[in-house]
Amino acid sequence: MPDASRVAVIDLGSNSFRLVVFSSIAGRWWRRTDEIYEPVRIGAGEGETGALGPAPMERALHTIEAYAHFCRASGLVLEEVQAVATSAIRDATNREEFLSSVGEVSGLPVRVLSREEEARYGYLAAVNSTTLADGAMLDLGGGSVQLVGVASRTARELGSWPLGAVRMTERFLPGEEPATKKQLKALRGHVGDTLAGDAGWLAATGDRLVGIGGTVRNLAAAAQRRAELPSFGVQGFVLERETLAEMVVELAEMTPAERARVPGIKPERGDLILAGATVVEAVLEVGDFAALEVTEAGLREGVFFERYLAPEALFADVREASVLNLAHQYPIDPPHVEHVAALALQMHDALVEQGVLERDAAERELLWAAAELHDIGMTVDYDDHHKHSRYLILNAGLPGFTPREVALIAQMARYHRKGSPGFGELGSLMGEADDELLARCSALLRLAEQLERSRDQLVREVRLAADDGRVRLELRHDGDVSVAAWAAERQRDLFQRAFGRDLEIQA
Amino acid sequence: MPDASRVAVIDLGSNSFRLVVFSSIAGRWWRRTDEIYEPVRIGAGEGETGALGPAPMERALHTIEAYAHFCRASGLVLEEVQAVATSAIRDATNREEFLSSVGEVSGLPVRVLSREEEARYGYLAAVNSTTLADGAMLDLGGGSVQLVGVASRTARELGSWPLGAVRMTERFLPGEEPATKKQLKALRGHVGDTLAGDAGWLAATGDRLVGIGGTVRNLAAAAQRRAELPSFGVQGFVLERETLAEMVVELAEMTPAERARVPGIKPERGDLILAGATVVEAVLEVGDFAALEVTEAGLREGVFFERYLAPEALFADVREASVLNLAHQYPIDPPHVEHVAALALQMHDALVEQGVLERDAAERELLWAAAELHDIGMTVDYDDHHKHSRYLILNAGLPGFTPREVALIAQMARYHRKGSPGFGELGSLMGEADDELLARCSALLRLAEQLERSRDQLVREVRLAADDGRVRLELRHDGDVSVAAWAAERQRDLFQRAFGRDLEIQA
Repeated sequence: MPDASRVAVIDLGSNSFRLVVFSSIAGRWWRRTDEIYEPVRIGAGEGETGALGPAPMERALHTIEAYAHFCRASGLVLEEVQAVATSAIRDATNREEFLSSVGEVSGLPVRVLSREEEARYGYLAAVNSTTLADGAMLDLGGGSVQLVGVASRTARELGSWPLGAVRMTERFLPGEEPATKKQLKALRGHVGDTLAGDAGWLAATGDRLVGIGGTVRNLAAAAQRRAELPSFGVQGFVLERETLAEMVVELAEMTPAERARVPGIKPERGDLILAGATVVEAVLEVGDFAALEVTEAGLREGVFFERYLAPEALFADVREASVLNLAHQYPIDPPHVEHVAALALQMHDALVEQGVLERDAAERELLWAAAELHDIGMTVDYDDHHKHSRYLILNAGLPGFTPREVALIAQMARYHRKGSPGFGELGSLMGEADDELLARCSALLRLAEQLERSRDQLVREVRLAADDGRVRLELRHDGDVSVAAWAAERQRDLFQRAFGRDLEIQA
Repeated sequence: MPDASRVAVIDLGSNSFRLVVFSSIAGRWWRRTDEIYEPVRIGAGEGETGALGPAPMERALHTIEAYAHFCRASGLVLEEVQAVATSAIRDATNREEFLSSVGEVSGLPVRVLSREEEARYGYLAAVNSTTLADGAMLDLGGGSVQLVGVASRTARELGSWPLGAVRMTERFLPGEEPATKKQLKALRGHVGDTLAGDAGWLAATGDRLVGIGGTVRNLAAAAQRRAELPSFGVQGFVLERETLAEMVVELAEMTPAERARVPGIKPERGDLILAGATVVEAVLEVGDFAALEVTEAGLREGVFFERYLAPEALFADVREASVLNLAHQYPIDPPHVEHVAALALQMHDALVEQGVLERDAAERELLWAAAELHDIGMTVDYDDHHKHSRYLILNAGLPGFTPREVALIAQMARYHRKGSPGFGELGSLMGEADDELLARCSALLRLAEQLERSRDQLVREVRLAADDGRVRLELRHDGDVSVAAWAAERQRDLFQRAFGRDLEIQA
């Protein structure tokens, strides 16, 4: 990636520090290309004394020094590194002392975010990695909680409260034992009272709540494991309020050491997870949300997006941006890929017009996404590249799509060359009619791929007519398309199974 | 891959046609980037009439026309395409007629290989994709069988016989029924007699036999499934003579339609596989080989290697070339990767010198390979990139290594950041002492990675001394390495488990 520009964002959070390098080519693609995570817990003990403790500061300085070394070695100019500090550092009585030590050991310029700035970066992360238009964003960190009311994708109300997981754990759930009912009640009461007063607007926003932060990601991963769902990350996972309530009850009965062993919970988060879960629960209650939608993006992405998307700071269409972002990272024969997408959509649209297929914008969008991404697996190896495309789609993820939708796109790509479409281990994510949906989209994608088999866009476009239980496909072209017709003919069985109609091809 | 040069090789085989595009940067890397496969079976019926039949020729011309379209659309100059024809076309009485039709419909210049040329390309494929030095190469196609005697990696004896899978099936095993004992005996007799006369030298070559071709690959895949081994391709798989004999008995009892459903056998090969397997068995017998070593490379790779490796046409060291070829395709921070490899090997060598570790060149090579490849997974996504490195190594493969060795390298890369080293689903490939081998290499790789955590090669080198059940690591450096020491300290448990010694780090 020689032409990509790189920017490092360092998030000095109350619970953990994280250096992330984003590489990008403006208007084409962006991705995280490096990351160093350290559970520094600089906010430990601050609730009691109001100051950063000596041991946490030492851990913090060690980590920041390593980050500075890393940036220099990677050719990143220190003055351009975006190092931001949040709640624990912002609120500490000895903050200036700490910041001057940071300057001495590392030379890194640290920007201490105001509450409003912190909340705004969380908002930018949420609206650029989900389809949230009306509702709210919850960012739960180690030190504080940020809430932002969102209407028509614009930030409205904006607040930050010192209700972070580290602070709440130290104040309400210290010790090595299971939590008592009394402790939980006190924590709930505190969070509920604080928010009910200052964040009363929460109940009046739209009905979607998007959550960011390590607590939220860990809860989602644990909920996935608990429901035995296949997991390829937690992006877009929907954590139902009821499920969360059950998990809080279960976690409360465990010791912190036991919580650290719950599948999905990171070991170093075992002591924090219950307080964090309880805060999330309280937010769902105060705002009367039915569920929390999880995104993997966080403050760091917010800081990055502000620059990458300047001046608007918003993707026009998050789902489209996700698909193209991934496609642009693996530029495999773009004219071929675009033409396969065009042919597949022409057939889809014609089948709708002819009454063979119901109009369904969501199905059309999934088909388009799969067409754009069907060949990216060639990056891994030519052999089995359809399977590698599936792997890359599942593992890189597509922010803005649900896990079910990502799995559907991945399976369509998986079956663009051969095989009998099915879901395998992803079946438990699927709805009742998804088998048919996959069959239809896979058939059209494979047919488009066969019409473009010679990869020279010789079949300019296709027309389609349906009658007498048959579908006739007419190929418009600039030359001899007998090869394309001959290749497409062989997908008649697949077409028949998907649409219950005979396919006839006219060159 | 903007600077890569591309060359298309078209293999007009007796059973199938295949267009393969190889992309490469001289001296850096090569890979297959495109492929179109078509089971044309141009040799069908030729045994009876001596000529190419009208239906096979029509299928062939359709396919070649599609290939030519593809080449033009991909910007490949037709005159530079390496289209080669083998046995079925070479031996056909109407060969000139067919070749002139090919020129008319496609403009592709076809080179009809002599028997010697065909054998030589198979030899080039075998010696450049395995560690074969002394022994023989078997290339079993649809029309003919090539055998090449190899000594010190040089081709010696060289022969080709019309004993291909299509020919032998049509002559000895026609029909839709299971094979009779009499049919098999006649086939065996014919192959044995032919080879015993002309290929008597086979018994005098070295004791390794490397096999190429579709029959060989299908037999290997079927043997893997039969033994319930994890499969990430058949490269380097060793098919024992005894296993093959059992498979021949099993396949003979099935109808061709049943053989087509055997896991690992491609459906379109169901009718050919038994004759092919019987020919392989006869070759093992005539040459008294204990097993067949399978490679995925074929004639096409031979044609490519001749140009890519000109003038020598041989990789100096196939295993090293495989590792660097894969590493160069994903150039993730080369100075960091090289330094991690250097540090890991320094520690390995010092542990040998100090008597903590036994000298073992194979273990050292696996550690080196894993270090070179540990970060390639960043191409997929930063998150879980250790797991993606594993996936890429397993799926791209490393010619010259056995499946067990590839799995070991993949697991070392998998555990270079975190987790407790183990084999999971790959366990059945492993030997008795491989758990310990993986533990040792993973510990050294992770330690090296931590010493290089700031990625600036600050820790220049390491010295190591062992006494009193302890290992002391001394860091030679050009600055403050407290960060590196602090990061490495945390791998003490892993080191203790791998080497049974305490680790002490001195900055």
